[in-house]
Amino acid sequence: MVDLRIGIVGGTGSMGRGLALRWALMHEVWLGSRRLEKAQAVAREYEQVARGFYENRMKGKISGAVNPDVPQLVDVVVLTLPARHALETVKQIKDRLTPQHVIISVIVPMMRQGKLFTHSPVISGGTAVVDKSAAELVAEEVGNIPVVSAFQTVPAAYLGDIDSVLNVDVLLSGDDEHALQVVARLAQEIPNLRALRVGPLSESRFVESITPLLLNAAVLNNLKDPSIRIVPWTPSDFTKE
Amino acid sequence: MVDLRIGIVGGTGSMGRGLALRWALMHEVWLGSRRLEKAQAVAREYEQVARGFYENRMKGKISGAVNPDVPQLVDVVVLTLPARHALETVKQIKDRLTPQHVIISVIVPMMRQGKLFTHSPVISGGTAVVDKSAAELVAEEVGNIPVVSAFQTVPAAYLGDIDSVLNVDVLLSGDDEHALQVVARLAQEIPNLRALRVGPLSESRFVESITPLLLNAAVLNNLKDPSIRIVPWTPSDFTKE
Repeated sequence: MVDLRIGIVGGTGSMGRGLALRWALMHEVWLGSRRLEKAQAVAREYEQVARGFYENRMKGKISGAVNPDVPQLVDVVVLTLPARHALETVKQIKDRLTPQHVIISVIVPMMRQGKLFTHSPVISGGTAVVDKSAAELVAEEVGNIPVVSAFQTVPAAYLGDIDSVLNVDVLLSGDDEHALQVVARLAQEIPNLRALRVGPLSESRFVESITPLLLNAAVLNNLKDPSIRIVPWTPSDFTKE
Repeated sequence: MVDLRIGIVGGTGSMGRGLALRWALMHEVWLGSRRLEKAQAVAREYEQVARGFYENRMKGKISGAVNPDVPQLVDVVVLTLPARHALETVKQIKDRLTPQHVIISVIVPMMRQGKLFTHSPVISGGTAVVDKSAAELVAEEVGNIPVVSAFQTVPAAYLGDIDSVLNVDVLLSGDDEHALQVVARLAQEIPNLRALRVGPLSESRFVESITPLLLNAAVLNNLKDPSIRIVPWTPSDFTKE
């Protein structure tokens, strides 16, 4: 009946809300949290919103679980964790992960500087890792399980408004062809989102650093929840005067 | 008669062509090159293209000079140099720069990896500087002269087609308010280009690393000369089913 089983680890935050509401149309979604009661309460709330909107078109459902129980319940594990907790949480779940899982890293390592934001390296074992993305550090931690970096540039506000159409791009980086295809399909099921590949997982560093630029563009230019769209040039762009 | 005097150091490349053709409508443009004959020949060619297109609306002109002569001829110095030559060329011209100049860095430090591209640190004094943008290294080299980072994400092909309308964004980073205003104005004179501020000059690192992502998106998703547009979310994006 349902298509995929998707677990969102750290899923009770705003990004988890948006992804859960969008994917519950077709998929069985599990929200992970540190506390079971919270996970279940939030899941019930989102399930109600989704069912109210999709009505009898809804094939999926939204349930709650503690983070470490999520992997065994699902096919795809999405990490929507704050960067400062991300690696620690991955360590807690990694024994339950198998090579059949696909991991999606939505982690954005950034910090606030006054009213602006900037990319900031992930802290691993007490030291800042300046030359690696959060997604690569997750991949190192989980060993031979494919990791795809995606969704960092899509604001939670866009996703969470269940009836808004998203004319923006999801930038995918990863090293595993099958996993990239799964994530591209999940992204493109969300109305008008376009999935664009930008290279191997090592490129995730540059994607992760776009999010603080978008937040700054919002603050400095008075834009609401900005995201990006990649615009190719075509001869039809020509406008003769 | 003309508005500003703009010098494009390393201006005989494809990015220099686009900027010269666009700005020659209103400004006096000087193309810098290592060889005078080359600079003058290229300038003559561009001047002809621009005059053929703008006809009697053209207020500016395009001339050639050797790179070190450019600063004393202009108000704004644009650096469209390959990253590997950039600092060396800046050293050659810096004695001619004054605090009244505005410098625009369009430098993109990147390298090819197979059929893809990736950001690569600038080499300064024989070592790779991993934590600084090309624009910041230029700023360190020139001392108290304001540097604005801009135009890295606008493909030369877009700019160079003199009659194409560019529905894309120029991301500006910089620390000097007056210089940012000058560059925003120059960007927005180009039809439909939008100038968006993304933070201090230290954010240029993250802007410079978007260019290889765009090139990879082109290769991997079959897009021609992609650029970016930042899309804010507004309630009017809603489309009820």
